[in-house]
Amino acid sequence: MKILVLTAHPDLNKSRINRSWFKAFAETDDITVLDLTRVGGPTMSFNVEEQQQLLLSHDRIVFQFPFYWYSAPPVLKAWQDQVLTYGFAYGPGSKKLVGRELVLAISTGGPEDSYHAGGYNNFSMDELLKPFQQTALMTGMTYLRPFVFHGLAVVAEAAMEASIATLLAHIQDPELNPLIKKARMDKLLENDAELAARVSA
Amino acid sequence: MKILVLTAHPDLNKSRINRSWFKAFAETDDITVLDLTRVGGPTMSFNVEEQQQLLLSHDRIVFQFPFYWYSAPPVLKAWQDQVLTYGFAYGPGSKKLVGRELVLAISTGGPEDSYHAGGYNNFSMDELLKPFQQTALMTGMTYLRPFVFHGLAVVAEAAMEASIATLLAHIQDPELNPLIKKARMDKLLENDAELAARVSA
Repeated sequence: MKILVLTAHPDLNKSRINRSWFKAFAETDDITVLDLTRVGGPTMSFNVEEQQQLLLSHDRIVFQFPFYWYSAPPVLKAWQDQVLTYGFAYGPGSKKLVGRELVLAISTGGPEDSYHAGGYNNFSMDELLKPFQQTALMTGMTYLRPFVFHGLAVVAEAAMEASIATLLAHIQDPELNPLIKKARMDKLLENDAELAARVSA
Repeated sequence: MKILVLTAHPDLNKSRINRSWFKAFAETDDITVLDLTRVGGPTMSFNVEEQQQLLLSHDRIVFQFPFYWYSAPPVLKAWQDQVLTYGFAYGPGSKKLVGRELVLAISTGGPEDSYHAGGYNNFSMDELLKPFQQTALMTGMTYLRPFVFHGLAVVAEAAMEASIATLLAHIQDPELNPLIKKARMDKLLENDAELAARVSA
Protein backbone atom coordinates (compact mmCIF):
# COMPACT_ATOMS: atom_id res chain seq x y z
CA MET A 1 0.00 0.00 0.00
CA LYS A 2 1.47 3.33 -1.10
CA ILE A 3 0.66 6.23 1.20
CA LEU A 4 0.75 9.92 0.30
CA VAL A 5 0.79 12.39 3.20
CA LEU A 6 -0.11 16.00 2.44
CA THR A 7 1.02 18.13 5.37
CA ALA A 8 -0.76 21.46 5.81
CA HIS A 9 0.99 23.49 8.47
CA PRO A 10 1.74 27.20 7.93
CA ASP A 11 5.29 26.79 9.30
CA LEU A 12 6.55 23.33 10.23
CA ASN A 13 9.64 24.84 11.87
CA LYS A 14 7.44 26.47 14.48
CA SER A 15 5.32 23.37 14.96
CA ARG A 16 5.34 21.40 18.21
CA ILE A 17 4.06 18.08 16.96
CA ASN A 18 3.38 18.24 13.22
CA ARG A 19 7.09 18.53 12.46
CA SER A 20 7.83 15.28 14.36
CA TRP A 21 5.04 13.55 12.48
CA PHE A 22 6.29 14.93 9.16
CA LYS A 23 9.83 13.72 9.92
CA ALA A 24 8.63 10.23 10.90
CA PHE A 25 6.62 9.98 7.67
CA ALA A 26 9.62 11.07 5.61
CA GLU A 27 11.75 8.32 7.15
CA THR A 28 9.23 5.53 6.48
CA ASP A 29 9.24 3.32 3.38
CA ASP A 30 6.17 3.47 1.15
CA ILE A 31 5.19 6.88 2.50
CA THR A 32 5.55 9.96 0.33
CA VAL A 33 5.23 13.17 2.30
CA LEU A 34 4.66 16.67 0.97
CA ASP A 35 4.91 19.95 2.89
CA LEU A 36 2.12 21.83 1.10
CA THR A 37 3.30 25.20 2.44
CA ARG A 38 6.72 24.66 0.85
CA VAL A 39 5.32 23.19 -2.39
CA GLY A 40 2.63 25.85 -2.87
CA GLY A 41 4.91 28.76 -1.97
CA PRO A 42 3.70 32.11 -0.62
CA THR A 43 0.76 32.29 -3.04
CA MET A 44 -0.34 28.68 -2.32
CA SER A 45 -0.26 27.79 -6.01
CA PHE A 46 -0.04 24.16 -7.08
CA ASN A 47 0.97 22.40 -10.27
CA VAL A 48 -2.38 20.73 -10.80
CA GLU A 49 -1.23 18.05 -13.25
CA GLU A 50 1.68 17.06 -10.98
CA GLN A 51 -0.51 16.85 -7.87
CA GLN A 52 -3.13 14.79 -9.67
CA GLN A 53 -0.46 12.34 -10.89
CA LEU A 54 0.80 12.04 -7.31
CA LEU A 55 -2.69 11.15 -6.11
CA LEU A 56 -3.07 8.54 -8.84
CA SER A 57 0.20 6.83 -7.90
CA HIS A 58 -0.87 6.27 -4.27
CA ASP A 59 -3.54 4.13 -2.62
CA ARG A 60 -4.12 5.99 0.63
CA ILE A 61 -4.13 9.77 0.99
CA VAL A 62 -3.48 11.42 4.36
CA PHE A 63 -4.32 15.04 5.16
CA GLN A 64 -2.11 16.04 8.12
CA PHE A 65 -2.81 19.35 9.85
CA PRO A 66 -3.25 21.27 13.09
CA PHE A 67 -6.91 22.05 13.83
CA TYR A 68 -7.30 25.84 13.57
CA TRP A 69 -10.81 27.28 13.85
CA TYR A 70 -12.30 23.80 13.50
CA SER A 71 -10.70 23.09 10.14
CA ALA A 72 -7.35 22.89 8.33
CA PRO A 73 -5.04 25.84 7.58
CA PRO A 74 -5.88 27.61 4.29
CA VAL A 75 -3.14 25.92 2.27
CA LEU A 76 -5.04 22.60 2.32
CA LYS A 77 -8.20 24.29 1.06
CA ALA A 78 -6.14 26.02 -1.65
CA TRP A 79 -4.81 22.59 -2.66
CA GLN A 80 -8.32 21.06 -2.63
CA ASP A 81 -9.88 23.86 -4.68
CA GLN A 82 -7.07 23.75 -7.27
CA VAL A 83 -6.33 20.03 -7.55
CA LEU A 84 -9.71 18.31 -7.08
CA THR A 85 -11.04 19.57 -10.38
CA TYR A 86 -14.19 18.79 -12.30
CA GLY A 87 -13.25 16.14 -14.81
CA PHE A 88 -10.72 14.62 -12.41
CA ALA A 89 -12.17 14.25 -8.92
CA TYR A 90 -15.84 14.53 -9.82
CA GLY A 91 -18.16 14.92 -12.77
CA PRO A 92 -19.62 12.35 -15.16
CA GLY A 93 -17.23 9.52 -16.06
CA SER A 94 -14.23 11.15 -14.43
CA LYS A 95 -13.99 10.18 -10.81
CA LYS A 96 -10.33 9.22 -10.89
CA LEU A 97 -10.01 8.83 -7.11
CA VAL A 98 -12.65 6.13 -6.72
CA GLY A 99 -11.42 3.30 -4.50
CA ARG A 100 -8.65 5.29 -2.88
CA GLU A 101 -8.72 5.96 0.84
CA LEU A 102 -8.64 9.22 2.79
CA VAL A 103 -7.47 9.50 6.38
CA LEU A 104 -7.03 12.66 8.44
CA ALA A 105 -4.18 13.10 10.95
CA ILE A 106 -4.97 16.06 13.20
CA SER A 107 -3.58 17.78 16.27
CA THR A 108 -5.84 19.94 18.44
CA GLY A 109 -5.00 22.41 21.18
CA GLY A 110 -8.08 21.61 23.26
CA PRO A 111 -8.55 18.40 25.21
CA GLU A 112 -10.69 15.52 23.98
CA ASP A 113 -13.56 16.16 26.39
CA SER A 114 -14.08 19.65 24.96
CA TYR A 115 -15.22 18.07 21.68
CA HIS A 116 -18.58 16.93 22.99
CA ALA A 117 -22.00 18.40 23.62
CA GLY A 118 -21.53 20.23 26.91
CA GLY A 119 -17.82 20.71 26.29
CA TYR A 120 -16.56 24.14 25.29
CA ASN A 121 -16.09 23.03 21.68
CA ASN A 122 -19.69 21.77 21.65
CA PHE A 123 -19.35 19.36 18.73
CA SER A 124 -17.53 16.07 18.19
CA MET A 125 -14.61 15.80 15.80
CA ASP A 126 -16.79 13.62 13.55
CA GLU A 127 -19.30 16.45 13.35
CA LEU A 128 -16.71 19.15 12.67
CA LEU A 129 -14.95 17.02 10.04
CA LYS A 130 -18.00 16.37 7.88
CA PRO A 131 -16.75 18.70 5.11
CA PHE A 132 -13.74 16.35 4.71
CA GLN A 133 -15.88 13.23 5.03
CA GLN A 134 -18.18 14.49 2.30
CA THR A 135 -15.18 15.42 0.11
CA ALA A 136 -14.16 11.75 0.30
CA LEU A 137 -17.72 10.58 -0.43
CA MET A 138 -18.08 12.96 -3.40
CA THR A 139 -14.82 11.77 -4.97
CA GLY A 140 -15.52 8.08 -4.31
CA MET A 141 -12.75 7.70 -1.75
CA THR A 142 -13.27 5.59 1.36
CA TYR A 143 -13.21 7.86 4.41
CA LEU A 144 -11.21 6.12 7.14
CA ARG A 145 -11.35 6.74 10.86
CA PRO A 146 -9.33 9.92 11.54
CA PHE A 147 -6.34 10.02 13.87
CA VAL A 148 -6.73 12.89 16.34
CA PHE A 149 -4.15 13.90 18.91
CA HIS A 150 -5.88 16.10 21.48
CA GLY A 151 -4.77 18.62 24.05
CA LEU A 152 -1.55 19.89 22.57
CA ALA A 153 -1.94 22.98 24.75
CA VAL A 154 -1.62 20.97 27.96
CA VAL A 155 -0.05 17.60 27.13
CA ALA A 156 3.36 16.30 28.28
CA GLU A 157 6.35 15.92 25.95
CA ALA A 158 6.31 12.13 26.42
CA ALA A 159 2.74 11.85 25.13
CA MET A 160 3.73 13.81 22.05
CA GLU A 161 6.67 11.48 21.44
CA ALA A 162 4.43 8.44 21.86
CA SER A 163 1.96 9.77 19.32
CA ILE A 164 4.47 9.22 16.51
CA ALA A 165 4.38 5.42 16.68
CA THR A 166 0.62 5.35 17.22
CA LEU A 167 0.03 7.60 14.24
CA LEU A 168 2.34 5.56 11.99
CA ALA A 169 0.57 2.35 12.97
CA HIS A 170 -2.79 4.04 12.38
CA ILE A 171 -2.17 5.27 8.85
CA GLN A 172 -0.48 2.00 7.81
CA ASP A 173 -3.19 -0.25 9.23
CA PRO A 174 -5.00 -2.03 6.35
CA GLU A 175 -7.93 -2.72 8.70
CA LEU A 176 -8.54 0.99 9.04
CA ASN A 177 -10.61 0.28 5.96
CA PRO A 178 -13.91 -0.92 7.44
CA LEU A 179 -14.53 -3.33 4.55
CA ILE A 180 -11.20 -5.07 5.13
CA LYS A 181 -11.87 -5.28 8.85
CA LYS A 182 -15.36 -6.62 8.18
CA ALA A 183 -13.95 -9.31 5.86
CA ARG A 184 -11.57 -10.50 8.57
CA MET A 185 -14.35 -10.62 11.14
CA ASP A 186 -16.59 -12.54 8.76
CA LYS A 187 -13.72 -14.99 8.28
CA LEU A 188 -13.43 -15.43 12.06
CA LEU A 189 -17.15 -16.10 12.34
CA GLU A 190 -16.91 -18.63 9.52
CA ASN A 191 -14.05 -20.41 11.34
CA ASP A 192 -16.08 -20.41 14.53
CA ALA A 193 -19.04 -21.95 12.74
CA GLU A 194 -16.79 -24.59 11.20
CA LEU A 195 -15.31 -25.37 14.59
CA ALA A 196 -18.74 -25.56 16.21
CA ALA A 197 -19.93 -27.90 13.44
CA ARG A 198 -16.89 -30.15 13.89
CA VAL A 199 -17.31 -30.24 17.68
CA SER A 200 -21.01 -31.11 17.49
CA ALA A 201 -20.38 -33.71 14.75
CA MET B 1 -27.18 48.13 13.10
CA LYS B 2 -23.84 48.32 11.32
CA ILE B 3 -23.10 45.36 9.08
CA LEU B 4 -19.68 44.23 7.86
CA VAL B 5 -19.61 41.84 4.90
CA LEU B 6 -16.42 39.90 4.27
CA THR B 7 -16.56 38.49 0.76
CA ALA B 8 -14.39 35.46 0.08
CA HIS B 9 -14.39 34.68 -3.63
CA PRO B 10 -11.16 33.88 -5.49
CA ASP B 11 -12.13 36.15 -8.39
CA LEU B 12 -15.32 38.23 -8.18
CA ASN B 13 -15.00 39.18 -11.86
CA LYS B 14 -15.55 35.56 -12.81
CA SER B 15 -18.37 35.07 -10.33
CA ARG B 16 -21.95 34.46 -11.45
CA ILE B 17 -23.78 35.52 -8.33
CA ASN B 18 -21.33 36.65 -5.65
CA ARG B 19 -20.40 39.73 -7.68
CA SER B 20 -24.07 40.84 -7.83
CA TRP B 21 -24.39 40.33 -4.09
CA PHE B 22 -21.14 42.22 -3.46
CA LYS B 23 -22.34 45.12 -5.62
CA ALA B 24 -25.71 45.28 -3.83
CA PHE B 25 -23.97 45.33 -0.46
CA ALA B 26 -21.64 48.12 -1.59
CA GLU B 27 -24.63 50.25 -2.62
CA THR B 28 -26.50 49.85 0.68
CA ASP B 29 -26.22 52.26 3.63
CA ASP B 30 -24.88 50.86 6.88
CA ILE B 31 -23.17 47.98 5.09
CA THR B 32 -19.38 47.90 4.78
CA VAL B 33 -18.19 45.31 2.27
CA LEU B 34 -14.68 43.97 1.85
CA ASP B 35 -13.36 41.83 -1.02
CA LEU B 36 -10.94 39.68 0.99
CA THR B 37 -9.13 38.49 -2.15
CA ARG B 38 -8.32 42.10 -3.08
CA VAL B 39 -7.48 43.17 0.48
CA GLY B 40 -5.28 40.14 1.26
CA GLY B 41 -3.50 40.20 -2.10
CA PRO B 42 -1.84 37.17 -3.72
CA THR B 43 -0.34 35.96 -0.42
CA MET B 44 -3.64 36.35 1.49
CA SER B 45 -1.98 38.51 4.15
CA PHE B 46 -4.08 40.77 6.34
CA ASN B 47 -3.35 43.80 8.48
CA VAL B 48 -4.49 42.19 11.72
CA GLU B 49 -4.94 45.39 13.75
CA GLU B 50 -6.95 47.02 10.95
CA GLN B 51 -9.22 44.00 10.50
CA GLN B 52 -9.82 43.72 14.24
CA GLN B 53 -10.77 47.41 14.43
CA LEU B 54 -13.21 46.87 11.55
CA LEU B 55 -14.86 44.01 13.44
CA LEU B 56 -15.16 46.15 16.58
CA SER B 57 -16.89 48.97 14.71
CA HIS B 58 -19.68 46.71 13.42
CA ASP B 59 -22.54 44.82 15.08
CA ARG B 60 -23.21 42.06 12.58
CA ILE B 61 -20.53 40.22 10.60
CA VAL B 62 -21.36 38.45 7.34
CA PHE B 63 -19.14 35.84 5.70
CA GLN B 64 -20.11 35.74 2.01
CA PHE B 65 -18.70 32.95 -0.15
CA PRO B 66 -19.29 30.26 -2.77
CA PHE B 67 -19.39 26.76 -1.26
CA TYR B 68 -16.33 24.92 -2.60
CA TRP B 69 -15.62 21.43 -1.22
CA TYR B 70 -18.15 22.00 1.54
CA SER B 71 -16.46 25.09 2.95
CA ALA B 72 -15.27 28.58 2.04
CA PRO B 73 -12.39 29.42 -0.33
CA PRO B 74 -8.99 29.52 1.41
CA VAL B 75 -8.86 33.30 1.71
CA LEU B 76 -11.54 33.29 4.41
CA LYS B 77 -9.64 30.68 6.42
CA ALA B 78 -6.45 32.75 6.00
CA TRP B 79 -8.37 35.76 7.36
CA GLN B 80 -9.78 33.72 10.28
CA ASP B 81 -6.42 32.23 11.24
CA GLN B 82 -4.68 35.63 11.11
CA VAL B 83 -7.33 37.97 12.54
CA LEU B 84 -9.15 35.90 15.19
CA THR B 85 -6.15 35.85 17.49
CA TYR B 86 -5.73 34.64 21.03
CA GLY B 87 -6.13 37.71 23.23
CA PHE B 88 -8.66 39.22 20.82
CA ALA B 89 -11.24 36.66 19.77
CA TYR B 90 -10.66 34.12 22.53
CA GLY B 91 -8.63 33.54 25.65
CA PRO B 92 -9.20 34.63 29.25
CA GLY B 93 -10.66 38.13 29.59
CA SER B 94 -10.27 38.98 25.94
CA LYS B 95 -13.30 37.91 23.97
CA LYS B 96 -13.78 41.19 22.14
CA LEU B 97 -16.44 39.86 19.78
CA VAL B 98 -18.93 38.82 22.47
CA GLY B 99 -22.44 39.99 21.63
CA ARG B 100 -21.78 40.50 17.95
CA GLU B 101 -23.62 38.42 15.37
CA LEU B 102 -22.35 36.16 12.60
CA VAL B 103 -24.34 35.28 9.52
CA LEU B 104 -23.19 33.29 6.49
CA ALA B 105 -24.28 34.12 2.93
CA ILE B 106 -23.47 31.19 0.67
CA SER B 107 -24.02 30.07 -2.91
CA THR B 108 -23.87 26.39 -3.81
CA GLY B 109 -23.66 24.68 -7.20
CA GLY B 110 -25.77 21.71 -6.16
CA PRO B 111 -29.54 21.85 -5.58
CA GLU B 112 -31.08 22.02 -2.12
CA ASP B 113 -32.29 18.43 -2.10
CA SER B 114 -28.72 17.16 -2.50
CA TYR B 115 -27.92 18.48 0.98
CA HIS B 116 -29.83 15.80 2.83
CA ALA B 117 -29.31 12.22 3.94
CA GLY B 118 -29.95 10.26 0.77
CA GLY B 119 -28.97 13.21 -1.43
CA TYR B 120 -25.62 13.12 -3.19
CA ASN B 121 -24.15 15.63 -0.75
CA ASN B 122 -25.32 13.43 2.14
CA PHE B 123 -25.30 16.10 4.85
CA SER B 124 -27.39 19.19 5.54
CA MET B 125 -25.90 22.67 5.30
CA ASP B 126 -26.28 22.98 9.08
CA GLU B 127 -24.11 19.89 9.49
CA LEU B 128 -21.46 21.02 7.02
CA LEU B 129 -21.33 24.54 8.51
CA LYS B 130 -20.62 23.46 12.09
CA PRO B 131 -17.01 24.68 11.93
CA PHE B 132 -18.38 28.21 11.35
CA GLN B 133 -21.12 27.81 13.95
CA GLN B 134 -18.55 26.74 16.53
CA THR B 135 -16.26 29.65 15.54
CA ALA B 136 -19.15 31.95 16.47
CA LEU B 137 -19.79 30.08 19.73
CA MET B 138 -16.11 30.11 20.70
CA THR B 139 -15.81 33.86 20.15
CA GLY B 140 -19.13 34.65 21.89
CA MET B 141 -20.89 35.75 18.72
CA THR B 142 -24.52 34.85 18.11
CA TYR B 143 -24.71 32.50 15.14
CA LEU B 144 -27.65 33.53 12.98
CA ARG B 145 -29.55 31.44 10.47
CA PRO B 146 -27.42 31.28 7.30
CA PHE B 147 -28.64 32.46 3.91
CA VAL B 148 -28.03 29.77 1.30
CA PHE B 149 -28.72 30.12 -2.40
CA HIS B 150 -28.76 26.64 -3.90
CA GLY B 151 -28.40 25.20 -7.36
CA LEU B 152 -26.27 27.81 -9.08
CA ALA B 153 -25.30 25.13 -11.62
CA VAL B 154 -28.87 24.79 -12.87
CA VAL B 155 -30.86 27.85 -11.81
CA ALA B 156 -32.39 30.53 -14.07
CA GLU B 157 -31.02 34.06 -14.34
CA ALA B 158 -34.25 35.49 -12.85
CA ALA B 159 -33.85 33.45 -9.67
CA MET B 160 -30.33 34.79 -9.28
CA GLU B 161 -31.58 38.35 -9.71
CA ALA B 162 -34.30 37.77 -7.14
CA SER B 163 -31.80 36.46 -4.61
CA ILE B 164 -30.29 39.93 -4.19
CA ALA B 165 -33.35 41.45 -2.50
CA THR B 166 -33.96 38.33 -0.40
CA LEU B 167 -30.36 38.27 0.78
CA LEU B 168 -30.37 41.98 1.66
CA ALA B 169 -33.58 41.57 3.65
CA HIS B 170 -32.09 38.51 5.36
CA ILE B 171 -28.87 40.07 6.58
CA GLN B 172 -30.63 43.29 7.66
CA ASP B 173 -33.42 41.54 9.56
CA PRO B 174 -33.08 42.25 13.31
CA GLU B 175 -35.24 39.21 14.06
CA LEU B 176 -32.64 36.97 12.50
CA ASN B 177 -31.34 37.09 16.05
CA PRO B 178 -33.39 34.41 17.80
CA LEU B 179 -33.43 36.32 21.10
CA ILE B 180 -34.96 39.38 19.46
CA LYS B 181 -37.53 37.23 17.68
CA LYS B 182 -38.31 35.46 20.94
CA ALA B 183 -38.80 38.78 22.75
CA ARG B 184 -41.34 39.90 20.14
CA MET B 185 -43.22 36.60 20.40
CA ASP B 186 -43.24 36.83 24.21
CA LYS B 187 -44.69 40.33 23.86
CA LEU B 188 -47.45 39.00 21.58
CA LEU B 189 -48.29 36.28 24.11
CA GLU B 190 -48.39 38.88 26.89
CA ASN B 191 -50.81 41.00 24.86
CA ASP B 192 -52.93 37.92 24.22
CA ALA B 193 -53.02 37.12 27.94
CA GLU B 194 -53.99 40.71 28.75
CA LEU B 195 -56.74 40.59 26.15
CA ALA B 196 -58.00 37.23 27.45
CA ALA B 197 -58.03 38.60 31.03
CA ARG B 198 -59.97 41.68 29.93
CA VAL B 199 -62.52 39.60 27.97
CA SER B 200 -63.15 37.19 30.87
CA ALA B 201 -63.35 40.09 33.40
